[in-house]
Amino acid sequence: MDSITDQAPDIAPWRPYLLASLQGTKDIPESRYFQLASVDITGAPQCRTLVFRELHQDNEIIVISDTRTEKFTEFASNPRGQICWYFAHTREQYRFDVTAQVTTFVDNELWLTEHWSRLSDAGKKQFLWGSPGTKRHDLNPLESLEPDNVVPSHFCVISLSVSKVDYLNLRGNPQNRIVFEKQSDGSWCSLEIIP
Amino acid sequence: MDSITDQAPDIAPWRPYLLASLQGTKDIPESRYFQLASVDITGAPQCRTLVFRELHQDNEIIVISDTRTEKFTEFASNPRGQICWYFAHTREQYRFDVTAQVTTFVDNELWLTEHWSRLSDAGKKQFLWGSPGTKRHDLNPLESLEPDNVVPSHFCVISLSVSKVDYLNLRGNPQNRIVFEKQSDGSWCSLEIIP
Repeated sequence: MDSITDQAPDIAPWRPYLLASLQGTKDIPESRYFQLASVDITGAPQCRTLVFRELHQDNEIIVISDTRTEKFTEFASNPRGQICWYFAHTREQYRFDVTAQVTTFVDNELWLTEHWSRLSDAGKKQFLWGSPGTKRHDLNPLESLEPDNVVPSHFCVISLSVSKVDYLNLRGNPQNRIVFEKQSDGSWCSLEIIP
Repeated sequence: MDSITDQAPDIAPWRPYLLASLQGTKDIPESRYFQLASVDITGAPQCRTLVFRELHQDNEIIVISDTRTEKFTEFASNPRGQICWYFAHTREQYRFDVTAQVTTFVDNELWLTEHWSRLSDAGKKQFLWGSPGTKRHDLNPLESLEPDNVVPSHFCVISLSVSKVDYLNLRGNPQNRIVFEKQSDGSWCSLEIIP
């Protein structure tokens, strides 16, 4: 489902926390869901649930999406985002300041095909039953109109590059909150703060 | 914990959905947690987990907070917010477009005292152990410095007035997505859209 590689020579200090949270909740499907906030062209915040796919060595969090959704337009005009990932089981919250970059099939055929082929049939179907957010004409089951072995042109991967992490552990005694911030030289600073 | 009253003569059409989701998950504490997105003064999205407290008759969702947190400053300059509330158990997502209004003790003593007195000792303690987000000087257990029977001046209630709801049910067959939007005359329109 999700893949995590951790062989970077210069490991960001928040990675061991996230890897432990993922490890401690690996049998709980909803622990892979997080919320991603963005800002729309009118300046209003938008927030939706997404499925975590990968954590890259260069501290990019990877999700998949559809270029026909609003977040595609939003990130085109303002690439700043924030992920809020709450692990109910371990009572930990991560808030990741991120910058979004969208990749489509024309940008990287191999990578997109890889992500597409990993999807379940039900997962693929969500990309093939019509343009999300448009009016639905009847309430019959939604049907796929395209073959599922071809990567649709609107299928995309969003790389969310992390520049800051606000980590909160509600189960600690004392409760813990640490802010990790990337410096201009690429190193990370961390500070314990009051929750 | 949370209280829901539903005696308004003109019931918003999304209320029965939310009331059913709350009823169907009433024994699951984390089903009362949702994410609230806002926009900070630099135009970046912010997103954090909050605890649902009440749904008012006039379609306001109520949470409690601390005026020393960033969201207080954020809502003072831009009151627009969006709640993303995912019910893992029922596989439903609500996205509420909201406008935030903050109430402190000086604005409404009775209401604030009511909310304060409903908090558990652990809940109160979080407001009494120092200013959130400031540097922590040691890692000893955080201690309350003030008596817990006095409502702190930084304790506040945030009313989130709902103007639009994007409801998604992933468990339906077919999947369902409905957008409910408040009209200028106070009535609500709804539209079935493609998920």
